Amino acid sequence: MPAAPRDALEFPESDRLFLEPQLPPRDGSTPRPDMPFTTLTFATSLDSSLALSPGTRTVLSGPQSKAMTHYLRSRHDGILVGVGTALADDPGLNCRIAGVGGYGGENLDFQPRPIVIDPTARWNFSDNSKLFQLCREGRGRAPWVVTTMPEPPAEKDALLKEYGGQFISLKMTTSESGRHQIDWNELLVTLRLKGLRSVMIEGGGHVINSLLEPSYMSLIDRVVVTIAPTWLGQGGVVVSPARRFDEEGNPMSAARLKNVKWYPFGEDVVLCGQVNV
Amino acid sequence: MPAAPRDALEFPESDRLFLEPQLPPRDGSTPRPDMPFTTLTFATSLDSSLALSPGTRTVLSGPQSKAMTHYLRSRHDGILVGVGTALADDPGLNCRIAGVGGYGGENLDFQPRPIVIDPTARWNFSDNSKLFQLCREGRGRAPWVVTTMPEPPAEKDALLKEYGGQFISLKMTTSESGRHQIDWNELLVTLRLKGLRSVMIEGGGHVINSLLEPSYMSLIDRVVVTIAPTWLGQGGVVVSPARRFDEEGNPMSAARLKNVKWYPFGEDVVLCGQVNV
Repeated sequence: MPAAPRDALEFPESDRLFLEPQLPPRDGSTPRPDMPFTTLTFATSLDSSLALSPGTRTVLSGPQSKAMTHYLRSRHDGILVGVGTALADDPGLNCRIAGVGGYGGENLDFQPRPIVIDPTARWNFSDNSKLFQLCREGRGRAPWVVTTMPEPPAEKDALLKEYGGQFISLKMTTSESGRHQIDWNELLVTLRLKGLRSVMIEGGGHVINSLLEPSYMSLIDRVVVTIAPTWLGQGGVVVSPARRFDEEGNPMSAARLKNVKWYPFGEDVVLCGQVNV
Repeated sequence: MPAAPRDALEFPESDRLFLEPQLPPRDGSTPRPDMPFTTLTFATSLDSSLALSPGTRTVLSGPQSKAMTHYLRSRHDGILVGVGTALADDPGLNCRIAGVGGYGGENLDFQPRPIVIDPTARWNFSDNSKLFQLCREGRGRAPWVVTTMPEPPAEKDALLKEYGGQFISLKMTTSESGRHQIDWNELLVTLRLKGLRSVMIEGGGHVINSLLEPSYMSLIDRVVVTIAPTWLGQGGVVVSPARRFDEEGNPMSAARLKNVKWYPFGEDVVLCGQVNV
């Protein structure tokens, strides 16, 4: 086994124990036969913000939480983000846990497939994007980019294919405010057909809030939220699902978790649970 | 000692241990000589909501957290809320831990003084308000109502005095949007002069957010937040301080905690810490 590079992350065995019951089964079985096991995971402030403002990268959680995220990535076939995250972060969207492919391991073993939801193909990736750099170094997989365009831009399509990625064209509905609405059923079925048995959904706010809507929340198998002891303040990118009303028109709780476990983790806390549908 | 009534709450010794380092010193000393020890404490959803909407009471946290709140009340001389909370809840604002005055204990021992911030004296309390019922039963103290009015309504004033409460007239500034802004320095000095050595600030959103502003956050000695594993959804009463900017005009984190401790507590988690000023 090649030596792990210096930027490899360690996630100690003692910390792995608490996560194990939350993870996709190691035998690759899935709760719904036609869809991957889905884990919704993200880090927020106490005021439920992912970032100080759209398009900025905000480091919220500590080093232990970061290592946890990369360990979670090693246990999923795919990791999914919205295009806002791709634009803001120039993210690597790979896994840096010591021992996975490119970080001391063979080939691309345990490297997840990045999936970027980009309805109008506005992500301007190039050879220089971090993600493709990592592909060239054998440290990550090329992305699948989910778009509404039946014929995505040819140049981008060629670049993706060169690295082993692809565009995936899906129909999406558009809300009154012009926002694209993902059909999570169709997307997850598509990802399963393409071979993914588990997907970790990492953000950003629009993606998370849409998955927490009543019509989709049953598709979430596990929730893993890291909370940092900070208030980012008003105007951040907030995780808060659309308001729900009961049969009499009174506001009700939008989503509850069950089988809840809290794990203090450095300065942060990690919340694991299942959506109570 | 009289028997504790059936609605008395138990908070076991084993749970008290984790709170002890967070509590006002038992010798009555205070970090600032002219002000009470202040504890900021409240329960929120994952999306930082105190309630589904202004003026509604939302039960967020579990029974263990409720007992903890009452135990905290037994360890403070005063508990402070905004008028919105008083209007929404018809709250008792007393302490129901077994063994305190009225709940198995003598006199009004360990019963905190309720303090209601009510700038325009719009809280329409009467003999029938729960708080005065509890006073008559020897299970709680009459409130101090903090107002901007130099001469509060005579009838209310008389009722307060009958039970041993009072109006406290303070100058407040008014924001552009017409909201009253509490001068926390003046208020806390006043409360200390009136004999309170510790105050627990419980809500609601306006009160909490104003205390978390840069000019006042140094007055907070401890933060104790209970987080319930629920998203209330958009439109709730949100704890999120006003946005802050650094010297270059970039948004920055509004408030951070230090010396953080997380305690899983039933389905909820309790976060204790100090504001990192």
